[in-house]
Amino acid sequence: MEKDLQVSITVIRRLPKYHRYLTELLEKGIRKISSQELSNLTGFTASQIRQDLNNFGGFGQQGYGYNVEDLHRELGKILGLDKKYNAIIVGAGNLGQAIANYKGFEDAGFKILSLFDRNPRMIGLKIRDIEVLDVETIKDYIANHKVEIGIITTPKESAQIIAQIYIESGIKGIWNFAPVDLVHPDNIVVENVRLNDSLFILSYFLNQFDNK
Amino acid sequence: MEKDLQVSITVIRRLPKYHRYLTELLEKGIRKISSQELSNLTGFTASQIRQDLNNFGGFGQQGYGYNVEDLHRELGKILGLDKKYNAIIVGAGNLGQAIANYKGFEDAGFKILSLFDRNPRMIGLKIRDIEVLDVETIKDYIANHKVEIGIITTPKESAQIIAQIYIESGIKGIWNFAPVDLVHPDNIVVENVRLNDSLFILSYFLNQFDNK
Repeated sequence: MEKDLQVSITVIRRLPKYHRYLTELLEKGIRKISSQELSNLTGFTASQIRQDLNNFGGFGQQGYGYNVEDLHRELGKILGLDKKYNAIIVGAGNLGQAIANYKGFEDAGFKILSLFDRNPRMIGLKIRDIEVLDVETIKDYIANHKVEIGIITTPKESAQIIAQIYIESGIKGIWNFAPVDLVHPDNIVVENVRLNDSLFILSYFLNQFDNK
Repeated sequence: MEKDLQVSITVIRRLPKYHRYLTELLEKGIRKISSQELSNLTGFTASQIRQDLNNFGGFGQQGYGYNVEDLHRELGKILGLDKKYNAIIVGAGNLGQAIANYKGFEDAGFKILSLFDRNPRMIGLKIRDIEVLDVETIKDYIANHKVEIGIITTPKESAQIIAQIYIESGIKGIWNFAPVDLVHPDNIVVENVRLNDSLFILSYFLNQFDNK
């Protein structure tokens, strides 16, 4: 995917952090900020910040800095946060339920429509007001609902099968929590959350300290 | 932290992926693998794989490739997976419970000893056999138990306070799920899981496709 884009994935991955800090500044009523002040907040250098933001058009004004509200709104648009997305989750275990339960995603424009599971004891349960449906019905469900994002919180053995169903049903974005690399066509966006990998990185660094 | 290390963080972040593929190869009974075969599996180039692994000593043999069992064990050691870690979680909401419930972490050597919360309705509950304790008792608890890793699954408003308690109690590793950048001394390892950021990256790419 990277090769199609002018902006590097490294820069793109920094955008949510900028957006997060700008949200906090807005909440505090701060209206303008210099790249140096943004640097102090984010830990990125001022010149990196200017470079990063220049990728998307010059937001700042020499001698003034950035208008917080404008920059927040523009970064939000770049991240697609001015739109609404519908998502479904396959895998109604603890992680699937935690995601369904977290209202923050909905506040950010990502609405979880339904959970799916194959376990008869789960089917019919409600997480908040979100029902757990039989995974056997998922293709019909997607055909009859506008679903942009498919979330996978199944064990790794089922993840590729579910990804295949998502892809064949026309879903363009997959948020994958299963510890597998999904095989998918180039026009499908897959974003992985690797909890195991993250924990292993933590233990790597703990281990480095121990060995010192 | 990066500047103390000879090996770049980018390489280190690839290690869990190598380890994951090697685990699968082992499970399939495959005993040796060439860097080219590893390349086909992981999507990294063969020369990148050789370079990455050379950072930690030459594991491969020219004309033979890698012994899967040896490489898996050595990477496991580098990641600190040959050791056992005790962890506690503050924030017994859905995400905290999901982490406590996931047996995979324990299988990898990370044992969750307890959850902590300030909500009286949560205190005393059990997640698997893991009890939810009153967060007011956490300092005593850490003083009386061997705890290497402190996990934070609180709302963002409490995250820094909890991090401070962890740090003052001598915990060296923090696994942070709250969407804040924790302030911490250099000798503390903080690994963040940014669920919001990950979702925003997904929507960024979805939005790129829409605009084409």
